[in-house]
Amino acid sequence: MRVDYCGVCHTDLHAVRTGNGEVPVVPGHEFTGVVTDVGRAVTRFAAGDGVAVGNIVDSCDVCAMCRAGQENFCHEFPTLTYGGTDRHDGTTTLGAYSREYVVRDRFAYPLPAGLDPASAAPLLCAGITVWEPLRALGVGGGTRVAVAGLGGLGHLAVKLAVALGAETTVISRSADKADDARRLGAHDLIASTDRRGMTAARDRFDVVIDTVAVPHDVAPYLGLVALDGTLSHLGHLGSVTVQATDLLIGRKKLSSAGSGGRPATAAMLEFCAEHDVTADIELVPSTRVREALDRLARNDVRYRFVLDMADLT
Amino acid sequence: MRVDYCGVCHTDLHAVRTGNGEVPVVPGHEFTGVVTDVGRAVTRFAAGDGVAVGNIVDSCDVCAMCRAGQENFCHEFPTLTYGGTDRHDGTTTLGAYSREYVVRDRFAYPLPAGLDPASAAPLLCAGITVWEPLRALGVGGGTRVAVAGLGGLGHLAVKLAVALGAETTVISRSADKADDARRLGAHDLIASTDRRGMTAARDRFDVVIDTVAVPHDVAPYLGLVALDGTLSHLGHLGSVTVQATDLLIGRKKLSSAGSGGRPATAAMLEFCAEHDVTADIELVPSTRVREALDRLARNDVRYRFVLDMADLT
Repeated sequence: MRVDYCGVCHTDLHAVRTGNGEVPVVPGHEFTGVVTDVGRAVTRFAAGDGVAVGNIVDSCDVCAMCRAGQENFCHEFPTLTYGGTDRHDGTTTLGAYSREYVVRDRFAYPLPAGLDPASAAPLLCAGITVWEPLRALGVGGGTRVAVAGLGGLGHLAVKLAVALGAETTVISRSADKADDARRLGAHDLIASTDRRGMTAARDRFDVVIDTVAVPHDVAPYLGLVALDGTLSHLGHLGSVTVQATDLLIGRKKLSSAGSGGRPATAAMLEFCAEHDVTADIELVPSTRVREALDRLARNDVRYRFVLDMADLT
Repeated sequence: MRVDYCGVCHTDLHAVRTGNGEVPVVPGHEFTGVVTDVGRAVTRFAAGDGVAVGNIVDSCDVCAMCRAGQENFCHEFPTLTYGGTDRHDGTTTLGAYSREYVVRDRFAYPLPAGLDPASAAPLLCAGITVWEPLRALGVGGGTRVAVAGLGGLGHLAVKLAVALGAETTVISRSADKADDARRLGAHDLIASTDRRGMTAARDRFDVVIDTVAVPHDVAPYLGLVALDGTLSHLGHLGSVTVQATDLLIGRKKLSSAGSGGRPATAAMLEFCAEHDVTADIELVPSTRVREALDRLARNDVRYRFVLDMADLT
């Protein structure tokens, strides 16, 4: 496929900084473009089709998770779009900060007409990462959802929760983002530094989507979760420590999620096309990738950089 | 009320060992007996009625949790049956290692006919602590439940899960308790030390009830939880550390629970009477309480000591 647009995310930044030994790192795992050619057995796509690819490009197909359509949880580990190991030739996969990507057809998704291909690109990683837990936790009309952290993941969580009919609140460090939150469709904003506001919101949300991207104490966010509700901790991997009583009182649940299976990814793209949901992006020529990564490192983006690959010959 | 039978649990052991400053510690918070007298405003009970009391005896009545029938999660903190602070006179509550207990009628439960009052006593703490999460997590016909740890809580979790129709497996340190597990109704036992067995059971259970009473790594038990399933960590309070990826892969949930609200407690007693579920107990005269506590400290009981108060004049 020809890559037209590729989102720039924190994982990319991390990959570039830490490297991968002898193998060059080519990031890029949320992208859209156009099919340029297909293998003989491929029937779902033809040259010229709009197409989108996310952060996994292969899986074992046979384990219980793959059979359940959760290839992202493949027991043999899914093949990552970059920095993964190709299941056929054993080489390290190279991502879509590139004009071309060759992908197994099962892991390419038709890009619905009506979705802007540039601002749709971040749906394939940030979008699906928040979509799966929202759906799995039954978010819909009347569900009370809080989204902690208003970045790449967070702003899409707000848009998707609102589109699903949820009563949606942003939890942000300060009230600075109140206008942004409203513009994204949120009904309310609580500053996490406002003790009184946080106390008043105790047990208020059926679902809290925690997208805060740095190590942090989840206790204040658990406090916001309603009886039998769930905190989905998405923004930062690593270890999480909680007091059992913070879960016990209210039978609260701590969960996480990441990436998505094929059925959920396809369903999300359809939903986004129907509800006109895409990322708020800053589109930059691919030659300005370093500047984009530097600004991302300072969280200086609302809310996602997307590289325009048209400048690559 | 006259206390006839009172269960002996780890909380009691802890309370006796650590004391409560100047105030004497009188443990006992899962007990049955007979109403001896009632206040003038009491209509639900009369002298002579069989009655059961658990580990909370009062709450604020007005917070969202109390209004939801979850007095155990009262925002003002419920009054504990012993070692708590009486909401009326401010004294420290004294428990039911005693022949007499005076209790607010809302927190006494009619003991259904047909339930043996001695073996029913542990239902009021151990029983309800496992009953609430089983119900809240929707355990019923065909649910796959694992119970880790076969002690006071664990053996009741097995009996209740089986009576609810769940396919129930015991996770125990070794296979020593396989006969016991079968006798309790469990369909299978996996030794937690059997790496192959634990690996084979990966992602197998919708609900894992973890009643292990000492600090432990929950990761091996999380490994057993199915996609979107829940591990309810009940046996040990304190802090719990998990790797976010152990929750992420499979969108697994970590939760906890403890004690129960009034509606759930009443419903559990009815259910137990219908399904003939009570604790497996060793009944000892109350004068042998020290021996019971010493043996409990060595986990030398299958599965709950109950004190017979008839020897108290």
